[in-house]
Amino acid sequence: MCTKSQLMEGLKASYQTIGRPERVGIALSGGADSCALLLLLRALSKEEGFSLVCMHIHHGLRDSADGDEAFVRTLVESLNLPYLVRRLSWDKAHISEEMAREGRYEALFQMMEEAHCQTIALGHHLEDQAETVLMQLLRGAGGKGLRAMAEFERGLWRPLLSVSKKDLLLFLDEEQQLYCLDETNRSPRYTRNALRLQVMPALRKLFPRCDKALYRAAILQRDQYALSTMAVKAWMEQNAVIFQGYAVVGKPAFLEADESLQRAVIHKAAEMLDIFLDFEQTERVRMAALLERGKANLPKGGSVQSGKHRLLILSGQKIHATLPKLEVVPLFSGFGDGLSHQALDSDKAGDYVLRTVQKGDSIRPLGIDGTQFVDKYLADRHVEAPLRKLWPILAKGNQALWLPGFSIGEEAAIGPSTKNVLYLRLTGALPDGRILGRKEP
Amino acid sequence: MCTKSQLMEGLKASYQTIGRPERVGIALSGGADSCALLLLLRALSKEEGFSLVCMHIHHGLRDSADGDEAFVRTLVESLNLPYLVRRLSWDKAHISEEMAREGRYEALFQMMEEAHCQTIALGHHLEDQAETVLMQLLRGAGGKGLRAMAEFERGLWRPLLSVSKKDLLLFLDEEQQLYCLDETNRSPRYTRNALRLQVMPALRKLFPRCDKALYRAAILQRDQYALSTMAVKAWMEQNAVIFQGYAVVGKPAFLEADESLQRAVIHKAAEMLDIFLDFEQTERVRMAALLERGKANLPKGGSVQSGKHRLLILSGQKIHATLPKLEVVPLFSGFGDGLSHQALDSDKAGDYVLRTVQKGDSIRPLGIDGTQFVDKYLADRHVEAPLRKLWPILAKGNQALWLPGFSIGEEAAIGPSTKNVLYLRLTGALPDGRILGRKEP
Repeated sequence: MCTKSQLMEGLKASYQTIGRPERVGIALSGGADSCALLLLLRALSKEEGFSLVCMHIHHGLRDSADGDEAFVRTLVESLNLPYLVRRLSWDKAHISEEMAREGRYEALFQMMEEAHCQTIALGHHLEDQAETVLMQLLRGAGGKGLRAMAEFERGLWRPLLSVSKKDLLLFLDEEQQLYCLDETNRSPRYTRNALRLQVMPALRKLFPRCDKALYRAAILQRDQYALSTMAVKAWMEQNAVIFQGYAVVGKPAFLEADESLQRAVIHKAAEMLDIFLDFEQTERVRMAALLERGKANLPKGGSVQSGKHRLLILSGQKIHATLPKLEVVPLFSGFGDGLSHQALDSDKAGDYVLRTVQKGDSIRPLGIDGTQFVDKYLADRHVEAPLRKLWPILAKGNQALWLPGFSIGEEAAIGPSTKNVLYLRLTGALPDGRILGRKEP
Repeated sequence: MCTKSQLMEGLKASYQTIGRPERVGIALSGGADSCALLLLLRALSKEEGFSLVCMHIHHGLRDSADGDEAFVRTLVESLNLPYLVRRLSWDKAHISEEMAREGRYEALFQMMEEAHCQTIALGHHLEDQAETVLMQLLRGAGGKGLRAMAEFERGLWRPLLSVSKKDLLLFLDEEQQLYCLDETNRSPRYTRNALRLQVMPALRKLFPRCDKALYRAAILQRDQYALSTMAVKAWMEQNAVIFQGYAVVGKPAFLEADESLQRAVIHKAAEMLDIFLDFEQTERVRMAALLERGKANLPKGGSVQSGKHRLLILSGQKIHATLPKLEVVPLFSGFGDGLSHQALDSDKAGDYVLRTVQKGDSIRPLGIDGTQFVDKYLADRHVEAPLRKLWPILAKGNQALWLPGFSIGEEAAIGPSTKNVLYLRLTGALPDGRILGRKEP
């Protein structure tokens, strides 16, 4: 059981945690939860010196909506607080629980902006959170969804999330504060209400502390989700590159990674390409990715190509080349590494240009007899077809002076007759995920 | 719906995943699940060439137990398979669901050893897993518990975890295989049965695919738990040291870490000291840990001391000193870093010894006038009381020649008169968590 001072203490701590906003909105339905929150927030606003704006949404869905609005208006006026009301209109025949909720939030955000509030307080309590966790779980949500409602997120503030409904009702009783009864909450038409009315009571009989357990589960899930996201991010920063339209994952590191990490990397890389994989799809891709020559299709026309050195995840959207940045480096010596640095014969290089490989481009690789089409040359070096047309080439007309990462052409190679040396530096990434200028671990 | 060939395919994939054991035990209650598993495993054993041993546990709890045993015996004999049976005895008045389960598993592991099986197959199916996830959640388990039953763990193999009961019953029907009805499964006396009989049907009405959703949740939790464990482990390897009886966490890194990581580190460090913190306790410790001078008590007489440079988590058990390893290094030059390397005057050092600090030990710190008790000296340098008596000291009698990590004494310092130099190296860790010989990042 919670006394008023305990409720106030919790509210105050939460207010301070979210950064002491100066202007707070409160969503007031007129029901018990929001009425309790109003009284508590009003007391806190006097103590902490912030201003409070009341906001009501007239759903227009029930006959009692007018009565609720009148009740809220009277209550707010009696407290002498600023008041905003928004009326929603619906196609009553087709309205779903989801649509009603979205409409409500949209209206709240509009009012928040209009009233210059930094946050909107909502009366969600312990049992609401418990139901949300359970709903998410039963609908098939993973760790992300099981985090349920946040105490503070996207401007929404839920300071009563750890307080049980019973304590709110006791508090209202002590304060002799009336409130409206929401009879839609009592209709099992909506899944959430059915869960509340039919299932939760049975669960509470079997597991008397289940609301608290579900509430805690959400917090634990929040931490666990954040931690696992960290692990995946750290790994990907080392071993994967996301380009526009495709992702490259280093294969040796992928093969060494834990199964859970492999799934997470596939899921995350696909997500960054706007493809959302469920568990089975992710697992199917993983199976292909473990092969030295594996292929798998993805939703939205995407695909996965698994080779010896890398795993390509292609979005199915047009792939855009991102040319590395080319600079002339004045002070440099040696021939360069052919990857990020290259020295050329300045007189022979002429009007060179850095562009992507085009049809007809050819190379006379240094030290090898003969001329070859660049596309064929790259294919022989296991560059996947979709990547070959993205490859950067330092070209003079159709001739390759330098194919970064592979070879330079004979044309502008430094030789005994070289008088002036051109030192070039590339920064960025090669299409196969090699980061230019980064030492491999 | 699953055909027999689909069931076989899944079973086969699972068998290959667990490494094709040559000798498989099967736990046979005589109920539908285990009878279905028996028929499937027997078919697979012929295909894959492994041997199958049937195991029955006679619970002795119901009148029907004798009948079940007889049924299983007849079935196994008709299939010509080896058969083991174990009879459990109970104090029927005091038996709980937990005790019955533990006794069952213990007996199974005994039989597994006796029959030289590498694994025991269990008939747990989709709905069993769904119930387990829900039970764990409602009992307040975090990510670890929500992983529910593993497909393969500690020798137990559950190849039917993704198969629904309905499919198993259909299969038995097609095979015209009889099975025993377990009427304890129909009694709501046990929480699990009550959940099964009273709650699950209501949930399935509201969320028709909830069993599958719960089954998947367990897999997602398994991955997420593994990933979050990785993140915590990686962070702790960099920023924390666990000693016998206490843990040291680097404070600057701790303050920079995400809230979720801070909680996880506290929880994990305490767990490694055999102290299990719930969410509220962890959070309370975290609040103390954020302060520059914070203290908090832990269960089992443990405590937390938060300072500017480090966070100490003390188990309440006796703390044991782990002296670093001392070596004489023949080839070395310079004075050393005072941390892991130190040069001394060999003639003055005499019969030095490396031990922990004792009452009466004193130091004449090099370059500072006067003598000080080592305990006071360490205290002035913000070494926490419990750590001071663990500190390694290179002593000659009661005199400090070297207090690793802080200073050397005048006694054996190298000076103009030094003829022979003694080069010493320490490896290991200092009690404040500094790793000797490791470069700080």
